[in-house]
Amino acid sequence: MGSTGELPPGMDEVSFRAAVTDLLAVLAYGEITAFERLADDARLAPTLDDKAALGQMAVAEFGHFRKLQTRLAAMGVDPEEAMGPFVEPLDAFHDSTAPGDWLEGLVKAYVGDGFAADFYREVAEYVDEPTRDLVLEVLADSGHSTFAVDRVRAAIAEEPALAGRLALWARRLVGEALTQAQRIAIERDGLARLIVGGSGDFAEVARLLSRLTDRHSERMSTLGLSG
Amino acid sequence: MGSTGELPPGMDEVSFRAAVTDLLAVLAYGEITAFERLADDARLAPTLDDKAALGQMAVAEFGHFRKLQTRLAAMGVDPEEAMGPFVEPLDAFHDSTAPGDWLEGLVKAYVGDGFAADFYREVAEYVDEPTRDLVLEVLADSGHSTFAVDRVRAAIAEEPALAGRLALWARRLVGEALTQAQRIAIERDGLARLIVGGSGDFAEVARLLSRLTDRHSERMSTLGLSG
Repeated sequence: MGSTGELPPGMDEVSFRAAVTDLLAVLAYGEITAFERLADDARLAPTLDDKAALGQMAVAEFGHFRKLQTRLAAMGVDPEEAMGPFVEPLDAFHDSTAPGDWLEGLVKAYVGDGFAADFYREVAEYVDEPTRDLVLEVLADSGHSTFAVDRVRAAIAEEPALAGRLALWARRLVGEALTQAQRIAIERDGLARLIVGGSGDFAEVARLLSRLTDRHSERMSTLGLSG
Repeated sequence: MGSTGELPPGMDEVSFRAAVTDLLAVLAYGEITAFERLADDARLAPTLDDKAALGQMAVAEFGHFRKLQTRLAAMGVDPEEAMGPFVEPLDAFHDSTAPGDWLEGLVKAYVGDGFAADFYREVAEYVDEPTRDLVLEVLADSGHSTFAVDRVRAAIAEEPALAGRLALWARRLVGEALTQAQRIAIERDGLARLIVGGSGDFAEVARLLSRLTDRHSERMSTLGLSG
């Protein structure tokens, strides 16, 4: 439903509300796991300054989680119940992509979170304006990107052989993310219909995937990795 | 040095300043590791509400870290350098007392942090007023105690056999904490002299230890554990 109050084709009020709840809930669980992950990556930081920088980003993610939780509650939804369906797929993604070192953690944060954020931003095009504003607000970059890019580029400049390993790692991340996203799309009908319904047809879904892939390649180049 | 500007016996301005720097630095590193540990314990939380509660406490600890870091910098001290000597003993403490489950994490937070906070509060009696105010502020309980006590008591009420295991765990925590504290006291002369000098004589140090032990026993009883 755009600001005009129109529902996406093939959706009624009930299924639309369920889809919006899913969108906010998957984001909320994503933010709280991002918080935990960043705090955990902070342990791998080579200096106390890096540790503090990562801690600050973790705190920002926690603030985003709180906003999404508050919005869900204001909609009359139990946040814990709404997040329930996303716990397993998101935990599975993180368990299968636990960074082996500090640089893998930074690449995961930049490439993985960047990919997810692009996707959520696309979905947000199809929801009502207050929801869209909140989604865009919590996805706004909290300085993490610049930090990760700086550190990864500097490491590769010092040791060019790292680029191959990190490029492979980034490909694995996106593969695992797509696996879990597909699983969510199969299980959460409303959310899937929001994307297909919102974009109207499957050709538009293909174009969406192509836009996401393009932006992913840009990020890989920015890091100094061949996509 | 109390608000009257007196230095503790046997200390000059230089050694006093070094001791105050040590006090703020060990607290700062303690807070950032507490942040990491609470965020990590959040993963073990049995519900998303518990996870969020622990996350909120972690965020509070990070805020304390920032205040201490800012104060050190305002004193013209490099916070990273000042924290350096405390990284190994505090990491050693946490590595040797990694909680095996959610309840052990809560007991560690309540018993271990409580013990450390009591100790720092005692030391703060011997420093200048602005330092003391900051120390008391960052040690103020952020609701963690009530949360931990509620959860641990409820778990023991449901399964009384837990009490024995958790009591043993708490004893191990305090033993490890004293080992590392002793190590710090040997290596950081200024800090040790602040405590001995501040309290005047070793009999007073013994009384301090006895006060700490009493308060530790109270916490054990509050949890429903025999101290």
